[in-house]
Amino acid sequence: MLGLKVNFKKIVGIIKIIRPSNVLISGLTISVAVLIFGGEGFDILRLALMAGIVGVLIDAGANVINDFFDVEIDRINKPHRPIPSGLVSKRFALFIYFVCTILGLLVASFLNKMAFMIVFFSSVAIFLYSYRLKRIPLVGNFTVAFITGLAFIFAGSIVGNFKDALFPFLFAFMINFGREIIKDIEDIEGDLKSGVRTFPIVRGVNWAVAVSVSVFLILIFATMIPYFVGIYNHLYFLIVSVVNVGLIFVIFSLIRDRSKRNLNRLSNILKFEMLVGLSAIYFGSL
Amino acid sequence: MLGLKVNFKKIVGIIKIIRPSNVLISGLTISVAVLIFGGEGFDILRLALMAGIVGVLIDAGANVINDFFDVEIDRINKPHRPIPSGLVSKRFALFIYFVCTILGLLVASFLNKMAFMIVFFSSVAIFLYSYRLKRIPLVGNFTVAFITGLAFIFAGSIVGNFKDALFPFLFAFMINFGREIIKDIEDIEGDLKSGVRTFPIVRGVNWAVAVSVSVFLILIFATMIPYFVGIYNHLYFLIVSVVNVGLIFVIFSLIRDRSKRNLNRLSNILKFEMLVGLSAIYFGSL
Repeated sequence: MLGLKVNFKKIVGIIKIIRPSNVLISGLTISVAVLIFGGEGFDILRLALMAGIVGVLIDAGANVINDFFDVEIDRINKPHRPIPSGLVSKRFALFIYFVCTILGLLVASFLNKMAFMIVFFSSVAIFLYSYRLKRIPLVGNFTVAFITGLAFIFAGSIVGNFKDALFPFLFAFMINFGREIIKDIEDIEGDLKSGVRTFPIVRGVNWAVAVSVSVFLILIFATMIPYFVGIYNHLYFLIVSVVNVGLIFVIFSLIRDRSKRNLNRLSNILKFEMLVGLSAIYFGSL
Repeated sequence: MLGLKVNFKKIVGIIKIIRPSNVLISGLTISVAVLIFGGEGFDILRLALMAGIVGVLIDAGANVINDFFDVEIDRINKPHRPIPSGLVSKRFALFIYFVCTILGLLVASFLNKMAFMIVFFSSVAIFLYSYRLKRIPLVGNFTVAFITGLAFIFAGSIVGNFKDALFPFLFAFMINFGREIIKDIEDIEGDLKSGVRTFPIVRGVNWAVAVSVSVFLILIFATMIPYFVGIYNHLYFLIVSVVNVGLIFVIFSLIRDRSKRNLNRLSNILKFEMLVGLSAIYFGSL
């Protein structure tokens, strides 16, 4: 009706640019967080579903606007991505971004004011990140990690429970901040070619390793606190110790082997570590 | 701090792409409408100011996203505009659009829910208009006219007075719908060159004249109704008669002389007619 020629190529392009598997994980994480933080309120399933949908839509929009602004760099580094490969036009990508974000905000507006404001703030941060912040060393890494952590504050705000959301927020923030720097070391070759100024490019790989190692060391100590203060139980300590052994492995491996292949492996381990850490918090608070 | 190199050229570009005089008129019209619809509430000045700011921001964003999506056509028809002339990059234009729209939505969120939803809906309509709707004959004209009229419903929603907003909405909608078609006849040459499919291009100039003449004839009769029903007083009838004499002049002139120069003159007359018509409604309701 609107003269949209929806063909197979276009649908494949939309699916690829949205990165459905990442987006679904974000949505599920938020839904589960709402269920956990929310206790047994009668309305909790509906709220968890809505929060998950908001997470999916905002994250999908984030992936698209990121590709939109990265198109020149991706032409060199990732020519197979939907925009540089010609599967999706820049114009249509912007349309997908707009629709996802605006629908995400719309669904969020049916939650409470605080939850809506967090989604609104995240949308602004996501746009600014893709537009400019990602090109400022460390600030870009900080922003990604912060938005990832903020998903838990969002989940908490929906059920008015910020107390339980605080540690998941801090944990997700720190592990992602360290992980983002490792990904910057991994991408150093391509980024150098395309003139992107990341922290390892500006200050050198040794400095970048030092920062992410420091973050992980602080994280290891930080994970102990809620156990010794008595917030979480023995089960938490048991599972989080597994996470910490993993973090110690990552630290040593990072110092020894900075090959692209190893860095990619460490980045994937950290992704898994985050999930285990979050489950530690969950089982530890039962 | 963000590495933004703000120089003189950039500032001139921002000012030009925002179209400050149009934007200020939109803002003022909305502020005045709130003052008129709102009666003598103690909070009315603050609300009128906020509504005006929302109008300025959303309208500024609308002008920018319009230029963003029109850049290929403007390279042929309006090469002096900020993006095709190289004063503002497409990337930076998108940034200005985003900041204006998001700030507009933010200010609107401090008004009531209904007012916010109207601004939200308008923002979506504005994006879709620039992205695609403007290229669908009549649908594009309808959308512009509708959003213009909606400014009054927005003003009414702020003070919970939809009754007084209805006629200004209908009046602004109709006069702008007719005017948009006249502007399409005016731009027919350039649009043909750039492959834009407007109503006069698709159905011919005679049809386009017929539609806008019909709209103005209906408008003339419609303006009588609120007087004879007793909604507005004699003063309204007096002033609106001036408007109607002007509309009759426009109708005859449109039939006789379809030169670009005359069409441009008629389009400006109609802009002025709208202001006189709105003042008729104002003075007529005192």
